[in-house]
Amino acid sequence: MSEKLNRLKEILGEVSDLNHAGSVLSWDQQVNMPPGGGEARGQHLATLGKISHEKSTSDEVGKLLDDLKREFDGVDSDDAALVRVAARNYDKATRVPSEFVSEQAVVTTAAFDAWVAAKGRSDFSTFQPHLEKVIDLMRKYVEFFPPSDHPYDALLDDYEPGMKTAEVQEIFGKLRPQQVKLIKAIKSARPIKDDFLHKKYAEKKVWDFSEVIISKFGYDFGRGRQDKAAHPFETSFSVNDVRITNRYEPSNPLATLFSGMHEAGHAMYEQGINPAYERTPLANGVSSAVHESQSRMWENLVGRSLPFWEHFFPELKKTFPTQLDGVSAKSFYKAINKVEPSFIRVNADEATYNLHIMLRLELEIGMLEGSLAIKDLPEIWNTKMQDYLGITPPDDAHGVLQDIHWSAGLFGYFPTYALGNLISAQLWEKINSDIRDLDEQIHKGKFDALLAWLRAKIHVHGHKFDPQDLVQNVAGSKIDASAYVRYLNKKYGDIYGL
Amino acid sequence: MSEKLNRLKEILGEVSDLNHAGSVLSWDQQVNMPPGGGEARGQHLATLGKISHEKSTSDEVGKLLDDLKREFDGVDSDDAALVRVAARNYDKATRVPSEFVSEQAVVTTAAFDAWVAAKGRSDFSTFQPHLEKVIDLMRKYVEFFPPSDHPYDALLDDYEPGMKTAEVQEIFGKLRPQQVKLIKAIKSARPIKDDFLHKKYAEKKVWDFSEVIISKFGYDFGRGRQDKAAHPFETSFSVNDVRITNRYEPSNPLATLFSGMHEAGHAMYEQGINPAYERTPLANGVSSAVHESQSRMWENLVGRSLPFWEHFFPELKKTFPTQLDGVSAKSFYKAINKVEPSFIRVNADEATYNLHIMLRLELEIGMLEGSLAIKDLPEIWNTKMQDYLGITPPDDAHGVLQDIHWSAGLFGYFPTYALGNLISAQLWEKINSDIRDLDEQIHKGKFDALLAWLRAKIHVHGHKFDPQDLVQNVAGSKIDASAYVRYLNKKYGDIYGL
Repeated sequence: MSEKLNRLKEILGEVSDLNHAGSVLSWDQQVNMPPGGGEARGQHLATLGKISHEKSTSDEVGKLLDDLKREFDGVDSDDAALVRVAARNYDKATRVPSEFVSEQAVVTTAAFDAWVAAKGRSDFSTFQPHLEKVIDLMRKYVEFFPPSDHPYDALLDDYEPGMKTAEVQEIFGKLRPQQVKLIKAIKSARPIKDDFLHKKYAEKKVWDFSEVIISKFGYDFGRGRQDKAAHPFETSFSVNDVRITNRYEPSNPLATLFSGMHEAGHAMYEQGINPAYERTPLANGVSSAVHESQSRMWENLVGRSLPFWEHFFPELKKTFPTQLDGVSAKSFYKAINKVEPSFIRVNADEATYNLHIMLRLELEIGMLEGSLAIKDLPEIWNTKMQDYLGITPPDDAHGVLQDIHWSAGLFGYFPTYALGNLISAQLWEKINSDIRDLDEQIHKGKFDALLAWLRAKIHVHGHKFDPQDLVQNVAGSKIDASAYVRYLNKKYGDIYGL
Repeated sequence: MSEKLNRLKEILGEVSDLNHAGSVLSWDQQVNMPPGGGEARGQHLATLGKISHEKSTSDEVGKLLDDLKREFDGVDSDDAALVRVAARNYDKATRVPSEFVSEQAVVTTAAFDAWVAAKGRSDFSTFQPHLEKVIDLMRKYVEFFPPSDHPYDALLDDYEPGMKTAEVQEIFGKLRPQQVKLIKAIKSARPIKDDFLHKKYAEKKVWDFSEVIISKFGYDFGRGRQDKAAHPFETSFSVNDVRITNRYEPSNPLATLFSGMHEAGHAMYEQGINPAYERTPLANGVSSAVHESQSRMWENLVGRSLPFWEHFFPELKKTFPTQLDGVSAKSFYKAINKVEPSFIRVNADEATYNLHIMLRLELEIGMLEGSLAIKDLPEIWNTKMQDYLGITPPDDAHGVLQDIHWSAGLFGYFPTYALGNLISAQLWEKINSDIRDLDEQIHKGKFDALLAWLRAKIHVHGHKFDPQDLVQNVAGSKIDASAYVRYLNKKYGDIYGL
């Protein structure tokens, strides 16, 4: 047995090395690469991807996994988890024929170009035929897998292993009326002043402040770095080299602070995985939603809290004395938490964000089932925006065309953003019952107990457990909306005096 | 035939992709990687290297090459050159057993660590047993190849394909007395004042000035970039992504300008290779010496010339008015060309540099032949330094322990540095006969005709021709010392009034 296991680990180790090499190349592409480098870089990545795919789907791996699955049946150990996760990945990878992967690459490349152009002209009609092809592909994809309760299950499973569409629908069904109710209440409350957030804040000073914050959080710059890129993201080359990117937008200069916290939240997760899992399929965050729970916790539950800014605001004010003249920590806290239904998901506040997600999930399911005609998408989008948020986008660019996901074939991804928010609140309640003076610690700029808790309960396990089991074990219940609803009602009740 | 050729190109294309991916990883390691990333990065590189080696030494490649060599025998075409170079690489790679490669990695890793420690304590004796092991390895390596006139031939051939030890010895034999004579003459001339070079020059301004110069040279930042690293180097990921690194040392602040020109010289070579050679073994500079001829030409024959500084000095003086107060272009030119026998090769001026190399070559040959006992190395080193340069190192750190090469098993590399200098002067005479007003152009800051000449005669051909044939075709004679001697005597005759 140990010989077969060692052979499996050897192959998976090489696959991990190839994938990490690809991640370095992709990071470089987005951070450093000169304009000329793109074509060759595509070729390098294609070759790495091809060899990684060949190695991970070989007959040898299949046979090793068959034998090892039998050996490890019912065993509870890291090796058993490794075999289980590897077998799952192997099954997925070998079900999907390589011709389909090629076809998908062709269709989505064209769809992406069409989306960029359509968004630029704010004209959905030219994107429509491409989206129809993408949907056809998604339907085809679903058929490679055994029948499930819902065709969307197979898509969701790629990002949230084991999660079912019906579970998500049930959770969202409870959440939706609560969030809609809250927004209505806020709408009739007294508006919050936030004009000082939109003054000029020098890029270098904002960037440095961001690095002070995330260092204090516990993001380890000895095993990472923050660089400038067009979009903030986190990427990992090993547990000891986990990098983040960030950006600075003059129109919303302090957003850099929050996207830094967000990406550092992802990165601290990856930096905290058990080093013994290196070069195995266990050395990743367990799912998109659990990953997002970490980033959103540091960004929102910590980084948009009052105790946090009671600690950091004096220093921020010292850094930007003119911009923040006459502003108190409390009024700054209120400003960064201002609720305002808006068209663009990525700019949405905590009270409205999940509604953007629910809308997308409903549309994705409708498109996949065929109950929704693609040509009607803009109209349905706008109707739902009016229902949930009380606003109607002025054009398709601010509506149905705003996200990259559909053009890239990323169906099933959106729900995990909202699930991540819910998990973050579930964990937060548990953390606060375990660390009774957490607010006091945050008020002092101390985050070590919080990080240690997350390390021990979530990070260290990597991909060992299924996400729902992990949440159940740690928070005491499966993914559920109630903690998040309590969190929102409490926070915005205080801020808006509801 | 074309089917076999296509299959060969397909495999070599993947090998090229893997090697370029490895180059991106190495570049990142030296430019960006956080301290924690080293261990995993070593593993990534080992896996890429292993797969690249397996692919390039497979039986399939051997059979394809056997067939194609016959087909292309006597043919003069790019494809024929590709087959010839690929067959040569295949032969080399398959002669050396993988156990030897592993042994070499173990021995040189230990030798490198021992060298770092020995250099730190300036004590050769602790490095001696490691160097003895490295020499044993070099002797073993040589035996994998067919007998040659001299055992050193096999080592030299790895850097300068086709070049023989006897040829180098003959060239150096003619060069040595000429250089020694020149240095003696300079020693009795009036010394040059260069104190203003060692004032404080702000890093950012020096860096920016360096980029102005190399942009004017024709280094294409749209297909490259310059980053900070511990050592200046050039690396290429494709003809359209060729990067350089540079450094800034407060003790010698303007050295940044010259190392920038040097690395840009290497990089412009790689940027100028025929794009049709991409993903084949022809898409490299042809040899270490020819590569060095390009870097040394831009650094020295252009960048340390009087016309060059007649153009750039006014701008430099505007940038550093206090530091260069009272300094003329002519006196700046003299200062940067000051000759001073010194202990450290990498800091040597043009008049003394080659003597450092000749000393090393003699020692390498002595060690390999066994005519020189390793324990006597420091003494012999110091004796030769006295003979050639008239100085004796104060300790081993400033003598026999100064270079990394031997600890890394890089035997056969040193001579190419001096050969590069010689080639640069041979090409320079030819260029000046083809472009009659070259000095005038440089005086105006115009380098396009020079770069176009190098592109057409050298760069575009990549690895198509053997280096000696290329030099013969372009300069009219094989590698030879006379042009360089003429160049040195003229330049330093003027500067020192000899």
